[in-house]
Amino acid sequence: MDLIKNTLCKIQPVDTKYYDIAQKHLDNLTKPLGSLGRLEEFARRIYGIKEGVDIEIDKKVIFTFAGDHGVTEEGVSAYPKEVTRQMVYNFLRGGAGINVLARHAGAVVVVVDIGVDYNFSNLEGLISKKVMFGTNNIAKTFAMSRNEAESCIKVGIELASEYYRKGFKIFGTGDMGIGNTTPSSAIAAVLTGRPVSEVTGRGTGISENSYQRKIRVIERAIDINKPDPKDPIDVLAKVGGTEIGGIAGVILGAASHRIPVVIDGFISTAGALIAYEIEPKVKDYLFAGHNSVEIGHRVMLEKMGLKPILDLNLRLGEGTGAALAMLMIEAGIKIYKEMATFSEAGVSKEIQN
Amino acid sequence: MDLIKNTLCKIQPVDTKYYDIAQKHLDNLTKPLGSLGRLEEFARRIYGIKEGVDIEIDKKVIFTFAGDHGVTEEGVSAYPKEVTRQMVYNFLRGGAGINVLARHAGAVVVVVDIGVDYNFSNLEGLISKKVMFGTNNIAKTFAMSRNEAESCIKVGIELASEYYRKGFKIFGTGDMGIGNTTPSSAIAAVLTGRPVSEVTGRGTGISENSYQRKIRVIERAIDINKPDPKDPIDVLAKVGGTEIGGIAGVILGAASHRIPVVIDGFISTAGALIAYEIEPKVKDYLFAGHNSVEIGHRVMLEKMGLKPILDLNLRLGEGTGAALAMLMIEAGIKIYKEMATFSEAGVSKEIQN
Repeated sequence: MDLIKNTLCKIQPVDTKYYDIAQKHLDNLTKPLGSLGRLEEFARRIYGIKEGVDIEIDKKVIFTFAGDHGVTEEGVSAYPKEVTRQMVYNFLRGGAGINVLARHAGAVVVVVDIGVDYNFSNLEGLISKKVMFGTNNIAKTFAMSRNEAESCIKVGIELASEYYRKGFKIFGTGDMGIGNTTPSSAIAAVLTGRPVSEVTGRGTGISENSYQRKIRVIERAIDINKPDPKDPIDVLAKVGGTEIGGIAGVILGAASHRIPVVIDGFISTAGALIAYEIEPKVKDYLFAGHNSVEIGHRVMLEKMGLKPILDLNLRLGEGTGAALAMLMIEAGIKIYKEMATFSEAGVSKEIQN
Repeated sequence: MDLIKNTLCKIQPVDTKYYDIAQKHLDNLTKPLGSLGRLEEFARRIYGIKEGVDIEIDKKVIFTFAGDHGVTEEGVSAYPKEVTRQMVYNFLRGGAGINVLARHAGAVVVVVDIGVDYNFSNLEGLISKKVMFGTNNIAKTFAMSRNEAESCIKVGIELASEYYRKGFKIFGTGDMGIGNTTPSSAIAAVLTGRPVSEVTGRGTGISENSYQRKIRVIERAIDINKPDPKDPIDVLAKVGGTEIGGIAGVILGAASHRIPVVIDGFISTAGALIAYEIEPKVKDYLFAGHNSVEIGHRVMLEKMGLKPILDLNLRLGEGTGAALAMLMIEAGIKIYKEMATFSEAGVSKEIQN
C-alpha cells in the first residue's frame, strides 16, 4: 500500500495561473480570438500540466493492458475467452488496430499481461506483470482479493514511473480482455449510482437475449458482492478487472509525475473513474480520447467533468481512440509553438468586437 | 463555359459495389464487426472513389483561396480588410494556422490569390489566378458578373487538374477573406431556403450590434440582387465571393478525376453547396472536415447529407479543419491496409451475435 500512498501524496492540481499565461500567448497568434477552439484548450492544459516547461508531447506511449474475466462463463461476450491471448500475439506482431493507429500517431505500444488466463512463458515484447490468471466470475464471487486489486494498481504506477524516466511525454491507456465491458458497466453503475440497464451496452456486439442476460449478470454481481461505492479499491476488487486496475494505476502514476494521460473508451474510463474516486485531482491530467458507442461511457465522463475529443463511433478499445486523440492534442501544441504572432507577421488585430 | 461543361460530363457517381468489397475486407480484420465506426466508413468511401486501385492518400494538398469582399464597407467583420493580404504573406512565410496544421497532417498548402484587393506583383510561392480585385459590395449590387463567377470556378477546376496530374491523392479546401462569412450566409440562405437569421453567425467574433447589422446586410443583398436558387452560378455571382467560386471549382475538378475532397468549415461548405447544386454527384467525393461554430454550417451539410468528422469548436477557416480531418481519413486507410485478418493472426471469430 505504501507505493499507492506515496504516489497519491505527490499528485497536485494544475496551477490555473499557467492556463492564463498560455491563453495570453494563444490570443497573440494570427487568428481571431478563440477560433481554434478545443485545440487551444489542449495547448492550455498541456502548458499547465508541464508548468510551461518542455511542453512538446512528441514521445508518446500507449499502455495496452490485457486480462481475462471469469464472468465470460455467463455468456456475456460474442467472442470466446481465448481471443484475449490470441490478440496479445496479434499486438506483438503489430497487426491489431492499436498497432496501426499508434504508428499513425507516432506512439509506442506497450503490451502488458496483467491478468490473462494463459501462460505466455517468456514471450518477447510482452511486459509480464501478471497478477492472476483471469479474475473470478463476478456473478458468483468477488473478481479478485483486495490485495490483488492493489497489486494491479501498483503495476500501473510502476509502469508510469518507468516510462516517465524513459522520457515519454504523454501516455495513452488501452485494454484487451474478452468480457470486460461487463465489469466496466458494473463499476459505472456502482460509482455513478445509475441503474445497470442505463450503463450497459452490447460490447463487441451481442444479441438482445445475451444483452438482457448481461444486465442480469451485472445486477447479480453487484447484489452478491456488495462493492462499497465509497471505497474504489473495493469496487475494483469486487466487480472489476485486472486491466482496469492497471489503467487506474497508470493514471495515478502519470498524475504524480505531471504527465498527461489520454484515456480511451469505456473500459479505460472505468479505470479512470476508479483513479478519480481514489484521488479526484487526477482529473487535471486526463484527456478523454473519444466518445464510445457504449452507453455507460458518457455517464462516467460526465461524473469526472471530461468532454471527449473525438466522436467516430469507435468501440474497439485497445487504446485506439486514445492514439487518434493524441494527434489532436499534438495539433494544439504545435499551434502554440509554431504559429506566428500578430506582430511577427505584421497582421492587424481586430478593430471592434 | 466549355471547361465547366466538360468537367461536369466526367463526374460519375461512385459504384456502390466497391463499398461492399471494401466492407468485406474490413469485416475480416481482427476486430469486432464495425467496431472502428467511421474509420471503416472513410476506408470504404476512399476505396469506392478509387475503385480499389491505389487507395493510399499519402500525397495531400490543401488549396487556400484568398479573396476580398466589398461588403466589408458595411462593417460586417471584426477585422479590417487589409488582413486578407497580410494573411497571404503569413501563409507564404508558414506562420498561419493552416501552415502548422497542414505540416502536422503531412499536406502541402497551395495559396491562391483569386480575388484579393491588392497587387502582390510576382510574390514567390503565391499562385496568382486573380479574377478581380475584390468583389463588389453585395449590399449595393452583384458581387461579380456571371463571367467572373465562371472564371472563379474554372480557376478551381484547373488547379484540381494540375494537382491531380502532379500525383496528389486527396484535396482539402480552405479560404481566407475578411468578411466572407457574409456571402457564405447569403448562399446558405438562398440555397437552403432558410431565413437569413438562422444561417448567420458572428464570424470572427462581432458584437451584438454588428451581428444585427450583418443580418440586415445579407437580407438586403438577397433582396436587391435576387439570386436565382435554381441557378447556382447566378447565386455565386450575385451574393458570393471569388474564393467560394474557386472552392466550388476545385470540388468539381476533383470529382471529375475521382479525387476525394475534404471540405473545411462554413465558407468551404458554401463553395461545396454551389458545386453540389451544379452537380449533385460531387457528394460521393466530399468529406466534411469538421462542424464549425457558425450556425449556418450544419444546415448546408444536412442539405448535402454530409456528417462532419471532427467537432472541436473551430472557426478559423483557411483549411484548418480539413487538414486535421485528413489525419482521421488516413487512419481509416491504414486500418484497411495494415491490420491483420482473423486467419492471418490466428484469432477466433465471434461465437454468437
